[in-house]
Amino acid sequence: MYNFIFNVDTKVLFGRGQIDKLGEEIKKYSNNVLLVYGGGSIKKNGIYDATLKTLSDNNIEVFEILGVDPNPRIETVREGVGICKKNNIGAVLAVGGGSSIDCAKVISAGTKYDGDAWDIVLNNKLITSALPVFSVLTLSATGSEMNGNAVISNMSQNLKLGTRSPLLIPKASVLNPEYTFSVPKHQTSAGVADIMSHTFENYFTNEKGVYLQERFAESILKTCIHYGPIAYNEPENYDARANMMWASSWAINGLISAGSSNNWSVHPMEHELSAFYDITHGVGLAILTPAWMKYVLDDSTVDKFVEYGINVWEIDSSLDKYEIANLAIEKTKNFFCNDLHIPCSLREVGIDEEYLDIMAKQAVRGGKLQGYKELDENDVKNIYINCL
Amino acid sequence: MYNFIFNVDTKVLFGRGQIDKLGEEIKKYSNNVLLVYGGGSIKKNGIYDATLKTLSDNNIEVFEILGVDPNPRIETVREGVGICKKNNIGAVLAVGGGSSIDCAKVISAGTKYDGDAWDIVLNNKLITSALPVFSVLTLSATGSEMNGNAVISNMSQNLKLGTRSPLLIPKASVLNPEYTFSVPKHQTSAGVADIMSHTFENYFTNEKGVYLQERFAESILKTCIHYGPIAYNEPENYDARANMMWASSWAINGLISAGSSNNWSVHPMEHELSAFYDITHGVGLAILTPAWMKYVLDDSTVDKFVEYGINVWEIDSSLDKYEIANLAIEKTKNFFCNDLHIPCSLREVGIDEEYLDIMAKQAVRGGKLQGYKELDENDVKNIYINCL
Repeated sequence: MYNFIFNVDTKVLFGRGQIDKLGEEIKKYSNNVLLVYGGGSIKKNGIYDATLKTLSDNNIEVFEILGVDPNPRIETVREGVGICKKNNIGAVLAVGGGSSIDCAKVISAGTKYDGDAWDIVLNNKLITSALPVFSVLTLSATGSEMNGNAVISNMSQNLKLGTRSPLLIPKASVLNPEYTFSVPKHQTSAGVADIMSHTFENYFTNEKGVYLQERFAESILKTCIHYGPIAYNEPENYDARANMMWASSWAINGLISAGSSNNWSVHPMEHELSAFYDITHGVGLAILTPAWMKYVLDDSTVDKFVEYGINVWEIDSSLDKYEIANLAIEKTKNFFCNDLHIPCSLREVGIDEEYLDIMAKQAVRGGKLQGYKELDENDVKNIYINCL
Repeated sequence: MYNFIFNVDTKVLFGRGQIDKLGEEIKKYSNNVLLVYGGGSIKKNGIYDATLKTLSDNNIEVFEILGVDPNPRIETVREGVGICKKNNIGAVLAVGGGSSIDCAKVISAGTKYDGDAWDIVLNNKLITSALPVFSVLTLSATGSEMNGNAVISNMSQNLKLGTRSPLLIPKASVLNPEYTFSVPKHQTSAGVADIMSHTFENYFTNEKGVYLQERFAESILKTCIHYGPIAYNEPENYDARANMMWASSWAINGLISAGSSNNWSVHPMEHELSAFYDITHGVGLAILTPAWMKYVLDDSTVDKFVEYGINVWEIDSSLDKYEIANLAIEKTKNFFCNDLHIPCSLREVGIDEEYLDIMAKQAVRGGKLQGYKELDENDVKNIYINCL
């Protein structure tokens, strides 16, 4: 197990009605706030009103920026930074999914940065100060509610890049499972795929001594497999929504990555898909993941896939190890395609051969992907081809 | 799943050499510190010197209180409070296991309290302020390094009571697995039993919707079963010590209890044993736990024991459910007795019938134990008898 620092100080207010406590948390830091959200859905389901009420109850002045895209754009960040600087705003509150929270995070750091906000996306070392960030989560997927990560797109450059800083970890996040009851089926399933992919990226590690973290990762995967389809089929099942929401936070807040040092594999490949085609991130991950698994399966990795198959899918441990591994991969694909009803191929989401070369090239622009197995440009292209 | 708040803001500095960063963390709060520790072992294995060095590197003035007992006494707390008040000390640093950390916590709150420190043990609502607490962990067991709990003994009254407050959560804790290499075998195994007991207390819950938390709990139990004996047999196995150390923190920092509302069963029964006989807490828990399991096993609880048997002990799921449950309990007892070499009965640790009545009465002095199954005075006495 490698050395690590674990420090996630988000105050999670979990459950029905907990939003009433949020204003008090924000008030500890600021008398005004920038509200960051996407479309008008939060105005239909009462979340917007509940948010304004807790802010108003604590005499917090509200500014707004809305229209955050599913893949949040740097232009929106710049606009938010402008509002914060102009009005001397002291806190940023996202109401939405990962897109709104990520956007809020970069606004919070951008406000404290003297240059253009895209700089701090390109280089997180430039983040030396940030306004306190808060969130009200309405989609279980990215885990942004309990970590310091943010992904921002620059569509003019076909770039979708991540940045991170402990300064961006939300001070408090409201996780009310009821707020995800109205999430459409296809977004629910894409969210489950996103949570599972975060978990896979950490689970498939070459570090041997991270036993507890591996078991924690399997716990998250089992939760997704158990409750993902229930959340899909019964959108108002509280326990299903609650477990998916809580799983989303723990898949990517440091718990399961602590002590291992893997770089990620599937996310950088997917980021090119959504940068070029603006597809739903979780859908891209669900399509790529089984193909990636199959591609990296060999004598050096098979034992890990056996562990995955037995512990997560409860496959008979007496079978041949490649049989277990292949069965586990097949079950993963079937789960995404059949149980979660996610498209099974790139063609189904409108992606063909046209940009495969350039996307593969872009995916490795920082060097070969140094994940569980090293992948070069050609490997990435082959995986894309296998997904067509 | 019930509503909950999760907010553990301890900065965990995990691994070899991480103690070098501790002084910097303390310096954010104070220019002086009260060092709280037990015996002289930390002076033999270099931990004391490493601690003084990081404090000295950051120009932090050091006061000391040593001789903290394995079941820390209120008298020691009072002495520490006196030193802090007299010298205007701004932070408390425990170097040791749960005893030193618990003692440091109550000193930190006692310093900010106007009356006698025993008051805040009896009533945690009186804890309204506390000095920042830090820890350097040398024993994997109580999880005190990452939560706001503390247990203090008042031997003159045969009382061993817990108190808790978010204000007592350490601001930073150093978890260097090497610091537990020199822990004697019997303390290593008692620590494993303590971690498992914390996990059981939360795992055996009547709340149905806490699926993720149940899987997390099983992860901790599996880690203890896998690495506990390795740590016992190979005291300098880094990964074994690292996994046990990290498991100790997560067993009782809120992760696995979030969303369920169980009171505990075995701990209150054990607290009477160590209050009356001053035995090692983990040993008492290991003796009581299988007897408690057997006592509460009935038609209303058998399914949970089946889940435990299959998921943790990998017992064949096709067996009869009572067969699975009883096998799981037997395996639990064998693990403590044979794999961890912990005494199997109360008589082996010098406890006979003499105080069973009064201990049973004391255990339920706050009312029947409202844990997984309600236990009255007679139940507690029966469980004690079954452990003789």
